[in-house]
Amino acid sequence: MGAMKPYDERLDHLLAQAARVFARKGYHSTSMRDLARSSGMSLAGMYYYVRGKEELLQLIEERCFTQVLDGARLAVTAARDPVERLHAFIRHHVTFFAAHMAEMKVLSHEANALPEDRLARVNAIKRRYVDLLQGLLQDAAPEERSADSSAAAYVLFGMMNWIYNWYDPAGEIAPDRLAELIARIFLGGFVEAHPTATGRNS
Amino acid sequence: MGAMKPYDERLDHLLAQAARVFARKGYHSTSMRDLARSSGMSLAGMYYYVRGKEELLQLIEERCFTQVLDGARLAVTAARDPVERLHAFIRHHVTFFAAHMAEMKVLSHEANALPEDRLARVNAIKRRYVDLLQGLLQDAAPEERSADSSAAAYVLFGMMNWIYNWYDPAGEIAPDRLAELIARIFLGGFVEAHPTATGRNS
Repeated sequence: MGAMKPYDERLDHLLAQAARVFARKGYHSTSMRDLARSSGMSLAGMYYYVRGKEELLQLIEERCFTQVLDGARLAVTAARDPVERLHAFIRHHVTFFAAHMAEMKVLSHEANALPEDRLARVNAIKRRYVDLLQGLLQDAAPEERSADSSAAAYVLFGMMNWIYNWYDPAGEIAPDRLAELIARIFLGGFVEAHPTATGRNS
Repeated sequence: MGAMKPYDERLDHLLAQAARVFARKGYHSTSMRDLARSSGMSLAGMYYYVRGKEELLQLIEERCFTQVLDGARLAVTAARDPVERLHAFIRHHVTFFAAHMAEMKVLSHEANALPEDRLARVNAIKRRYVDLLQGLLQDAAPEERSADSSAAAYVLFGMMNWIYNWYDPAGEIAPDRLAELIARIFLGGFVEAHPTATGRNS
């Protein structure tokens, strides 16, 4: 692990800078030359890490979904009941993306920019993340119809993911507070309408 | 009015087709030639209506925000109290955009594609629409802190606007039913936590 670190740090830097440029200019309008300029690396240096722009976008998307999936699994493990697990998932998602706004915009806007084989790899991880939330929702509100429960998962992702359009993590509302507002709306409106399922209707 | 109709119909057709192409390929990757092909119009025919791609995007955005703003004003006028007005706003927004998914994707993805002067005109209409929702929220939940109320408006827009990423209006959940699900979550989680304000806590 130790021997890998310098390699990983430069790659991390490259991925973080590339996400910023893709978020600002759009993937299709960005050249490897633009990315070299903003990352402070030479073109040759960049090609040491990735074969090109496609691989760079794939790595940004794969890493981001892997990190948010791993973090969410850890967060829900610590919670005691279905509603707390859902609450922990929301808190983790919002605070993670508030700290990765550029990556989040890229995940949303460039969801279909990759060719099919690369897209399939990204979507396999994304699918596991969506499945995790849908499982939590079924546990927290088991009597919902399956179509409604599935739609509710995407409605919740909408509340959380749309923040890249308006939210400033350095502004009046800190990420923790935004996470609580979203949890309050979603848990209050969707889950706590089911007192028998959650045992916590107030 | 009657004499204007043939003109408007061709322009409407052009705007609808252009929105579809922009939604699929992205604004920057689309040429006037692509738009001529998909609309079945000649380049000369298109230039009779608009000066170019920029004006086309501006018209799509202005028309869409104007229509949704006018429709929302009408919908809330018919409602009897603050919660019903908010409910009517949500129902109108979701059903309008379920019927205009391409325009909705363009409004979201190309929000910053226009040059400053054109963008300012679009954003002036958008601002009136956001103000309308924020006013409804303040009436329905007056004791919320202003920052939370403002954030809640964007959280609600997120629930509603994200649908272009996952929702199929021809699928299992009809637009009306999706609108009711979103209204139930938002009104239940944000508004009905305020029994004194709404007089309808259940």
